[in-house]
Formats: sequence, structure tokens, C-alpha cells
Amino acid sequence: MTGNARAKRAKVARWSILASLLLAGQLAEAKGETPERRWTLEDIVTAPKITSLALSSDGSELAYIQMAGDIEKNQTMHIVYRLDLSTGQRTEMVRSGVAMQLEAIEGERAWNVLLDIGEGQQLYRVDAGSEPQIVLASEASITIGETEGGLFAISFIAPHRVGVLAYDWSPDRKWLWYAALKPGSDEPKVQFDNEVVVQKQRRRAPVSAVVELRLRSASGEDMLVATRPASDRLAFHYAGTVSWADDGLRYYVETTYGTQSDKSEAFDLKFNSMTSIPAGEQQGLSSVDFVKGPRGGLLTTDGYGSALELVETGADGKRHSYGKHPFYLGDPRAAGSWRSVDGKRTILGMRTTAHPRYGLVLVSSAGPRTILTLGSLTRCDFRYDLEWGICVEEAMNQPPRLVKVEPSSGKITAIASVSKRHEAISPLRVTSHRWINRSGHNATGFIVWPREFEQGRRYPSILVTHGSDADERFADQDLQWDYPVQLWAERGYVVILVNEPSPRQSPELMAGYAQWSTGSGPLSPIEVQRRAWLNVVETFEDVTTQLVNEGIVDGARVGIAGYSRGSQITNVAITQSRHFKVASSGDGHFLEPTIYPISIRSYGAIFGGPPSGPYLENYLRISPSLRAGAVCAPVIQQLAAAHAGAIDFHVALRAAGVPAQISLYPGETTATEETHLFHIPSNRLLAMRENLAWFDFWLRGQKDLNAPFPEHLDQWAKMADGFGQRCGLKAENPQDASAIR
Amino acid sequence: MTGNARAKRAKVARWSILASLLLAGQLAEAKGETPERRWTLEDIVTAPKITSLALSSDGSELAYIQMAGDIEKNQTMHIVYRLDLSTGQRTEMVRSGVAMQLEAIEGERAWNVLLDIGEGQQLYRVDAGSEPQIVLASEASITIGETEGGLFAISFIAPHRVGVLAYDWSPDRKWLWYAALKPGSDEPKVQFDNEVVVQKQRRRAPVSAVVELRLRSASGEDMLVATRPASDRLAFHYAGTVSWADDGLRYYVETTYGTQSDKSEAFDLKFNSMTSIPAGEQQGLSSVDFVKGPRGGLLTTDGYGSALELVETGADGKRHSYGKHPFYLGDPRAAGSWRSVDGKRTILGMRTTAHPRYGLVLVSSAGPRTILTLGSLTRCDFRYDLEWGICVEEAMNQPPRLVKVEPSSGKITAIASVSKRHEAISPLRVTSHRWINRSGHNATGFIVWPREFEQGRRYPSILVTHGSDADERFADQDLQWDYPVQLWAERGYVVILVNEPSPRQSPELMAGYAQWSTGSGPLSPIEVQRRAWLNVVETFEDVTTQLVNEGIVDGARVGIAGYSRGSQITNVAITQSRHFKVASSGDGHFLEPTIYPISIRSYGAIFGGPPSGPYLENYLRISPSLRAGAVCAPVIQQLAAAHAGAIDFHVALRAAGVPAQISLYPGETTATEETHLFHIPSNRLLAMRENLAWFDFWLRGQKDLNAPFPEHLDQWAKMADGFGQRCGLKAENPQDASAIR
Repeated sequence: MTGNARAKRAKVARWSILASLLLAGQLAEAKGETPERRWTLEDIVTAPKITSLALSSDGSELAYIQMAGDIEKNQTMHIVYRLDLSTGQRTEMVRSGVAMQLEAIEGERAWNVLLDIGEGQQLYRVDAGSEPQIVLASEASITIGETEGGLFAISFIAPHRVGVLAYDWSPDRKWLWYAALKPGSDEPKVQFDNEVVVQKQRRRAPVSAVVELRLRSASGEDMLVATRPASDRLAFHYAGTVSWADDGLRYYVETTYGTQSDKSEAFDLKFNSMTSIPAGEQQGLSSVDFVKGPRGGLLTTDGYGSALELVETGADGKRHSYGKHPFYLGDPRAAGSWRSVDGKRTILGMRTTAHPRYGLVLVSSAGPRTILTLGSLTRCDFRYDLEWGICVEEAMNQPPRLVKVEPSSGKITAIASVSKRHEAISPLRVTSHRWINRSGHNATGFIVWPREFEQGRRYPSILVTHGSDADERFADQDLQWDYPVQLWAERGYVVILVNEPSPRQSPELMAGYAQWSTGSGPLSPIEVQRRAWLNVVETFEDVTTQLVNEGIVDGARVGIAGYSRGSQITNVAITQSRHFKVASSGDGHFLEPTIYPISIRSYGAIFGGPPSGPYLENYLRISPSLRAGAVCAPVIQQLAAAHAGAIDFHVALRAAGVPAQISLYPGETTATEETHLFHIPSNRLLAMRENLAWFDFWLRGQKDLNAPFPEHLDQWAKMADGFGQRCGLKAENPQDASAIR
Repeated sequence: MTGNARAKRAKVARWSILASLLLAGQLAEAKGETPERRWTLEDIVTAPKITSLALSSDGSELAYIQMAGDIEKNQTMHIVYRLDLSTGQRTEMVRSGVAMQLEAIEGERAWNVLLDIGEGQQLYRVDAGSEPQIVLASEASITIGETEGGLFAISFIAPHRVGVLAYDWSPDRKWLWYAALKPGSDEPKVQFDNEVVVQKQRRRAPVSAVVELRLRSASGEDMLVATRPASDRLAFHYAGTVSWADDGLRYYVETTYGTQSDKSEAFDLKFNSMTSIPAGEQQGLSSVDFVKGPRGGLLTTDGYGSALELVETGADGKRHSYGKHPFYLGDPRAAGSWRSVDGKRTILGMRTTAHPRYGLVLVSSAGPRTILTLGSLTRCDFRYDLEWGICVEEAMNQPPRLVKVEPSSGKITAIASVSKRHEAISPLRVTSHRWINRSGHNATGFIVWPREFEQGRRYPSILVTHGSDADERFADQDLQWDYPVQLWAERGYVVILVNEPSPRQSPELMAGYAQWSTGSGPLSPIEVQRRAWLNVVETFEDVTTQLVNEGIVDGARVGIAGYSRGSQITNVAITQSRHFKVASSGDGHFLEPTIYPISIRSYGAIFGGPPSGPYLENYLRISPSLRAGAVCAPVIQQLAAAHAGAIDFHVALRAAGVPAQISLYPGETTATEETHLFHIPSNRLLAMRENLAWFDFWLRGQKDLNAPFPEHLDQWAKMADGFGQRCGLKAENPQDASAIR
């Protein structure tokens, strides 16, 4: 045993004591404050999310980025904290609208991170002692975001100027590889056919930008290696994903012909010549994300069902099985992956198939070892030797906290809370479930129980859904968006957070989802619709029916809410079934005929072609606006932008006499839009209050005194007149009647 | 007879001599140049349009605004000329991207005019001797036009900043009333329901602006009278249409509740108190356009048919008839109106019902006197006593020229040509026609004959249509847009310029059009569709069939082209009939389901409601994209903006295997759009060349060596493969077959 290893162990010993001290103090504080501190909307908006963490090179300090709504500033802020692991002292190093790609600097107690603190997004160095220092700046003339003159990119932060998109140091730190965003040519020209078609929903002028892949030497020489279109996702998001060698590097770019190609191309660059030599093209973009196992092969989880096979596949195609396990690899919400320097051990983030949460798996020649807590381990950083690491642990009713993870033993020790405010909330009861639908498919999820739940009483209930985001994370916006899940439970709703049946459970389901995604496959459009939408709606009907049968839920007072994918399901649910009595549909308009031109590939699978001629009947089967006459649930649509299909649905609902409201939440200016996941705290608060008032009105017949737009209550009452009656009776229009299942 | 009157007569005598000298010289010059100077595309783009003219206060000089494409500058320019009526000398006073509201200054040989010569649109004074002098400037912080950050307003010029929108001097010139455009409040806020619905097709951030109605006194005091929303059309376009009294004024604004109301409201303002007192609300916006006759009543033309009744209606409702005449009043393309100071005589611009052209009618106690030439009198200005005036005379084959008009005698004398270049073109043969369709409705129009037309040979033919714009104007963009009518005739096409059947000919047709416009009425959607669209298509079928029957046109080679309203008719024609073999559809997308949210009122009449539920079948009857399977004509769509409905039609055509192309012409920058009537000369030239190549390819089977995008010729050939065959056969899809009439 080397002195170095001893030192580490000693440190570990100190850890445990410190950790229990820290945690005990916080718990006491939380308990002492008020015995029954209930959830507030402000708690949801300020719920912290740790997006990244990095141990200092010597393991003595941890830096992490914490994102949360700042109600006073009315912004979503990223704060970079530093935690001294020996003293437990936490200090704020910097706060910024953007903070990403946090990486420890070798040999120092300092980090590199991309920040925007006034000069646009640039590369900084942060440490305990000083102001952030700029390491690399590139003129930030392009703004990214949903604003006039901005370059559109999927982003959930306020529009901001960007100089440096991403960076990568060579292992010896002699070379700095980076991607810079630069203006492209914007000579106006005549455009034709598909160049025009894709503009159907364009709401802003196109902004021309290119990504420059550049290399800076130790002596400060700065070389342009390649100029890529901004549509090259590998260049834009990952600076072309570099792998380093001693004499040069290999970088990967997406092969683009103006559109996304799903193909990538490698180039080799030698430091002595500085020219890029093509090194082959390949299908897919994820080449660099593959993770090597102890045998040098790539680790994946394969197969279908609740346990998947963990496989290591060698370059020769030989497969080594580590057996079947109830988790899968590759989920972007899971922690990353780490490989020991000697290559003998790999740690990978994974997600469990039942009771959905995120854990780790250590793979060594001894086989896999699963590391799980009651909640999730969502973000981690490990020492180079994988002896220990720090992770974020969180759960539905556990705010994020930092824990120490020792992979060999599986030991997990709490280190530090990150939010006293949220620790102080008296947790709601949350239970994990697995439901089976009428076709035998299972769906996972949770019930958040009313705080004063009494067995034997029937409760109004709201089902919240968003793909597979019902998992053990804390008040996460990915699932609950602007649905005030915890407040509903406080108000006496049974809140059902449910995932759609995972396509991983059966090849049949997977085939439907795959065809939707790729646009091609053997299934008919009707079959794709059935597997990827109608089956989900049936599942949710069955989940709530079970709770009604168990005497928990009042079947006459069941609502549904979902944004994005959840909005698809919500819209399909109410246009196919009378099971749900009221709906809140967030920022979605998929399946609507009007967006065919921007959804050609997937609509090919779902409908066969555009909404005309022989394909029209496939739209009539499932497009929400074409089935508005079948709706018996009032619908509120909360939008971040004036989506064309959402407008069509609203108009059709109104024409069909269905109580309906659209609320469009604004961006920072009238020339800026809110983001799909709202990033403006005041909008989140208003939208949640609107949902509280909406469901109280339609499910409990109550006018919420705290309704954010009180004048709407009377409008809802007016729209309600006669509507319930109409839906209680048989549909008068035979066309509508046939639409009801 | 006073000395003053003698002086005027004497001047007139000089006139005639001068005029014949000027004109003779030009004709000689034109004839001498080349005996057979043919039309070029550049001739079309540079064809002058006189938008306004104004005699100086003493009648010795004329100022006029001439608009034309400037190919070298690649801009549409407005040049303000001054013509010395005694010497015939013409001088350019100023050129500007904008020039409007040209008015003589009382007592001077000078004019006021709104110009943008660097400071945004402001009020200037121009005269023979000096540079334009600024009279009134208001900070021009708002840009009007189709550009990012610009305020949308229907406009056919490049985006430009505006300070002064409009102005009006009091008769004694002591007061200057004007409208200034100012930034409004643009606090972002949550928007609901219809506020969101109308944004379905919004392509730019809304720009908040208000119109300030202001009054400036002789001493320079500047007072804000009222602040109006930019949506108030009376305020925005007419500065609130003032009528002056000695002690104050009355102004009119549109009653707005965020949307167009078609109601106006009057306010009285006394100079001594400077407060606005409401003076009543009324239906309609045109109150100030009514023209008084010799009995003090309002002059209108009433009834239906080819002759309409000229009526003067007194304030007491009593009607005095001046008999039936083959013209109507109130056409915005006709010359304006003038009333003698003594009120005994009124001159009004009118349009004839047969052989469509614009003339004048002098109404006095002696009855009406019609003033007509072979072509049109499109713009005029008359002396206060109506003894004489100057008009623009033009015709299909006569470039605009200035003529003197003496209303009492009806004498018309040519004064000056305005474009030697266009006088030099050897005129094409143009004949005027009136066709009767199968239902007995008549349609007027023209044939532009191939220059080397031979009786007995059958010619390929192109029908060009745009509402009622086929009339005696010279190469006017209103009708021919970017369809190179004259070049087609030069290339050997029989070009048919045809108006749709005027709804003025029958109450039945008018009812259909009125319901379309107002959104309400007794007709079923099917009947509205029949009267306002299908009847037009039948008419155009019948027109061309007659020419085929006369042995002039080859029925297998008939194409159709139209923009805007013409694009509607073109799209309906090819989706309802196989009569037309190829189509060019310009910048239109009306009748498409996708634009329901921005066409709710008219779509209510045409379809009954939104494209869902019981209304969907009405869309299936006539929406072009829903009938793409019936199309047997290749379709090019030339666009000034990426209109959603045009894209849907293109996509549906392609999916149905119909050869189809979209060409989107750009604005000055990638953040700016071309205007509905293209204003960028290079775009006009390219679009016309594209149309030449398109029709030559599909009607004559020729690959145009001058095609502007030669790579498209092969694409067209590829799309043509098998297409003709398919359309020669019975439709394979029964749904499509039923669609063919």
C-alpha cells in the first residue's frame, strides 16, 4: 500500500464523521423550524438542480453548478459553488446565466468552466480565492436563443451571446481545442422547394452562423482547423468530440447536407502538419459516447423486458455477457461514465427499469456491481482510480444532496445538503408503482398522496405525464413542468405521476417507437398510432381505473396534465376517450396536420404522408384538432410560443363548444419567446397558479381566490354552461359519436 | 369676363401648340430609333407609374411623382418631377424610396410632399430652385415594412423609417395637422385565446407603435391631440381625416377594440380650448370620401348591370337620378374627385363597365358629362374652378403621358410624354373583349396578340388574371405582377388578360362576394364557393374554349397565371378542372385550411367554420391542398414570403406526384421579405425569366437558354416523366376521380 493510498483512506475516515455532522445539523434544523412546513410554489421554482460537478485534481475540493430560479431577479441562475471537502465549507465562486462544461484543472485546486458574465459565453478559470479569470475569449457576435436576431438552438435558458461553444484540453494541457461561434454569410438568395417548406413555422429571420473548430497551442498560436455549419450537431454541441494522441488528434463532425444526416465523419490532424485528413464516415453520432469495459469492448444493455442483458462487445464483434439486470445504460439523465486509468474498472450511470431511478454500475473482471440508493444518483465525479467519488443524491421527496460513493464497497455516505430551504419542507408521502394495462404492458410511476389522506375517502385526482420523466428526482421540471404537483397534494388531490409503457419491455412496442423516430419500417400508420399513442392512453385509463376500483380516486374527478410528449398524450387522451374530465396541455402541438412540413419524417410513419388525398383519413383518426367534436374535457393550453398546431386545436375546440383557453407566456421582451421549459420564474409561478385555479374550478367546482387572472373564472363559468350536459348526453353529431371509443 | 379669366385662356392657347410640338417630337424620335423595337423584361420593370400629380397654386407648373424600378440601383424609386407648363421643361426635384401626399403650396410655385431622403419619412417642401427643405420632422424611430423589428403594414416599398405618416394644412395654412408614428409600450405580458390565435402565421415579433395626432400652430406650438393605436386605419393612413372650420376642426378615427371594427368616431376640436369632444360614431370608414354633387347631396352609382344609375342623395334621403351610365364611381384606381369652389360642378374619377378603363365624369346642374379617351385617365389635378386640369393618360399599349383636360368641352390634349424609352417600343396589338360564360355572366378583358400573329395558326396561350385589374393601364404591376405578358406575346403566345365576372352585374354574384367579405349572409358555404370561385373558373374555361373554337388557341397548350386573388383562382382552376395544362401561382394561399385563424371572418362564409368536424367537408370541396390529387397541371408558386398555405399546397402536390416548384424571392436582407408586389427589380427580372422558362418548358416543350436557374430544367424533366401519362389516363384513385369535374 502506498503512502498515497493511505492518505486517501485517512481522508475518507474524516469524511464520514464530517458528513454525519453536517447532515445531522441540517436535519435538526429542518425539523426544528416548523414541524409541518408545507410546500409553496416558490419552493418548486427555487428547487435546485445540480447540473455538473467536478473534483479538484487532488480530490480536496469539489466544484458544482447549481441551477435554480431566482425569484427576486426573475431569472434562472447558475451558481458555481466550491465545497472544501475537509472542512465542509461551501463558497460561491460565481453566478451566471450560463455555466457549463465544468472541468478540474490538472495539478491545481481550480476549474475551467464556460460562463457568460458580461462578455458572452467564454472560457473561464475559477477557484476559491479570486474572481473568475478569462482563459479564452472569442468575439461573441451571435446570440443563441428564441429571440429576434438570435440563432435558434434547443435551450432552456435566456438568450445569450456566445463566443466559445465548447472546449477540450489535451491530456498534457499543451493544446486547447475549442469551438467558436461566428457569423456566416447571409447574402439573401432565391430559395426553392424544401428550403421553403421547412420555413412553414419559422417565426424569426434565419441567422447565419458557422462553428469554427480551432486549436490553440501552449505558446498561444491560434489555428482554424475547420469551419462547420451551425447545423452540424457534433461541432455545435461537442466541438467535434476530439480524441487525443501524442502527435495529433482525431475529431468528428456530422456529415451535413443542409439537414441532419445522422452520419458522422472523422478527421485526423497531426500537430506537425496541421492539416485534416479524412478518416472515414460512419452511421450515427454517438461514437465517442461508447464506453469501454474491462475487456476493452463496448458496454451496452441489450434485449427487452424488465431485465436487460449487460454485454461487452469487442472490436471483433464477440459478445461477453455479464448477465441480466433490471437497469439499462445510456440514459442521458443518468450519471456519466468513468474508467480507471488501468482500464480494469468502469463505472457507468444507469436507470432502473422498475421503480425508476438512477444508479451506478461498477463493471470489472469480477462482474458488475450495482450501486443504488433509495433515490437516484444523478450526477457524479470520480477519482481517476475510481476509489471514491461524489454524487448528487435526490429523490421525489429528498432534495438534492451530495454523497460520497465508494464503488468497491458500494458504501454511500451523505456529505452535504445543498438547500436548507427544501430540506425544511415536511416531505409528502410518495409511493412507487408498476401498473399493468389491458394489453399486458406495464408502466411505472408514483403517487404523491394528499398530505391529510384518509383511507376510505375518494379524492379528485390529476395524472401528470411526460414520457419517462416520472422518476426519483426532486421537483424536477423535466416531469412536472409548470404543474404544481406538490401543491395539488397539499390541496387534497391524489397526484399520479406516470411514465408511458417503456418500449424496452417489448419488441412490438419498440418497433412502433422506432418507426416514429426513423420514419420508416414495416408497420402501417394505424399500427404506429396504436403502439405509440393509443396504447399509452389506454394505460393511463387503466391506471386511474385501478385507483378508482381501490376506492382511492373519484372517477368523476380525474384530470390529466402534460407538456411536450405529455401534451401529445393529453390531447390524444381527451379526443379518444371520456375518461379524463379536464386537461392541461403544455406547449405541444405534435400530431396536428399543420406542422407536417416540419415533421415530414415522423409524419410519414404516423400518417403515411401529408394531410391530403389518401393520407387524410389517418389524420382524422388521431389529429387532436380533427377530433375536437369528441372532446368532453375543458382544455387549457399553456404555451411558450404561438405554436400553429396548438392554435388549431384551440380553434377547433372552441368551434365544437368545448371550454378552452390558450395562455401564451412571454419571453424577456416582446421579441423573445419563453423556452419550452420555462426559464422565467414569474412565468412559472403564474402558470402553476393558473393550473391550480383551472383544476380547482373544473374538478372541485371552486373559484380559486388566488387565481392569477381572476377575470377568467367568469369566462370559464360561462363556457361551462350547458357543456357538462352536452357531454352527459349522447353526442348529437353522428360523426362525433363514432369518434368516441 | 375678368382679366384673370383671359389670362387663363391665353395660357391654354399656348398649351395646344406646345403639346403638339412636344408629342410630335417624341413620336418621331420613337419611330426613328428602330422601326421594330420589341419589348424587353427591362421595359416591364422600368415601366413608369405616376402615382400623384399637383398643379402649382398659379397653374403654371405641375409636379408629379413617378415610380419605377431602377435596375442599376436595384430599387423601386420615386422621382418627383416638375414640369414648367409654359416651356415644357421637365426637371427632377428629388428622388426618394418613398414619395407621397404631394400637395401644392398656396401662393407659391412649390409643393409639400412626404419623402424619405435619409431622415425617415418626413414632410418636405420642394420647388424648382433648391434642395428639398424639411418642413416638419418627427423622430423616426419606427420602421414600417416586412423586416425584423419592423411594423407590418401593407406596403409595396422597401422597409423604411417613418416620422410623419400624413399631414393636412388648414385652408388658411395657419394650422398643420399631422400624424406621427411613435413607439408604443412593449411590456411583455401573458396573452390569451384570440390574442394568440391571430399569431398563427406571425413571422416577426410584434412591434408596438402608436399614432400621435398632432396640431402645429403658425407660431410653431406643437400639441398632441390624440394617441391612437397603429391598428386605427383612419389615423394610420389618413391622419384621422380632418375637416376644417374657422374656429376648429373635426377629425375621424376608427373605433378599435384591438381589431378592425369598420366603425369610425368623430371628434370636434376647438382652437381656443384644444380639447376633443366626441361627435358621434358611425358605421364605415369612408365618410370623408363621399363626394358632393351640385345639389349638395352625395354622388354614388347604384344598381346592377352594365349600366348603373348615377344618383345624388340629399341629407334628407331624397334621391335625384342622373340616369343610367356604363360606369361606376368609387374605384380606388380611378382619378380622385374635385368640386368647384362655387359647388356647382363636380368632377369624379370613374371606371367603365365594358372595355375597362378609367375616365372622368363632370356632374353639374346640366347633368353628367362623361370624359373618356381610348385609354384611361388615371391621375389628375384640376384648377379650383375646374376650367382645366392635367391628367395621366395611359393604355395597354400607350405609356403614361400627360394630357390637358377641359371638362366643359371634354377636350383632351396631349402635353408631354414621360418615358421616351417606352414610347420607343413598337406597340403590340391589344384588343378589348367581353365574354359570356355558360351561366350568362360576362367577363371583360384583353388579348395581347403575338407580334407575328397569323390567322389560321393555333397558338399556345396563357391566361393572366387578377380580380378586376385587366384594364387600360400600361404594363401595370397590379395585373401582370411578374408575368411577362408582353414577352410572351413577343414569343408567340396568345396572352389573355381577363377579369373575373364583375359582381356588379348581378345581385346574385354580389351576394356571394359580399358574404365572403363580411362573413355573414344567407348563403350556404357551398353557394359562396360557387359564386365567388367556381363561377370564375368556369368563366375562364369558357373564354379559352371560345378562342379554341375560333381556331386561335391550341386547347392542348393553355396555361394560367395569377397572383394574390389570381393565385386563388389559379389554384382552384387546376384542382377543379383539367382545362389548364400548366400554372404559375403567385404569392397566394387563400382557401387553405392552415390560415383559418387569420381568416376567421371570411372562412366563416366560405367554409362555415374551422377545418374540423362538420366543416371539414366544405374544405374538401375547394381547398387546393386537399384536392392536389386531382391536379393535372405542373404548378410553380412564386412567393414573397414563406406563406404557410402555399407550402401546404406544394407539399400536397409533390405527394400526389404533380410536378411542382416553390420559389421564394428574398428581401433586401435575410431578415426582410419581398413585398406582395415585388419591389426589388432583380427579383422581378428573375421571376419573369422563371415564368418564361416555366411556360416554354411545359407548353412548348422547350428548354429556355435564358432560364434563370438552369439546373431546374432537368428537375422539371424528371418530374414530367410519367406525369403526362398519368393525367391522360383515368385517375387511379377513386377519391381523386370524383374530384374532377
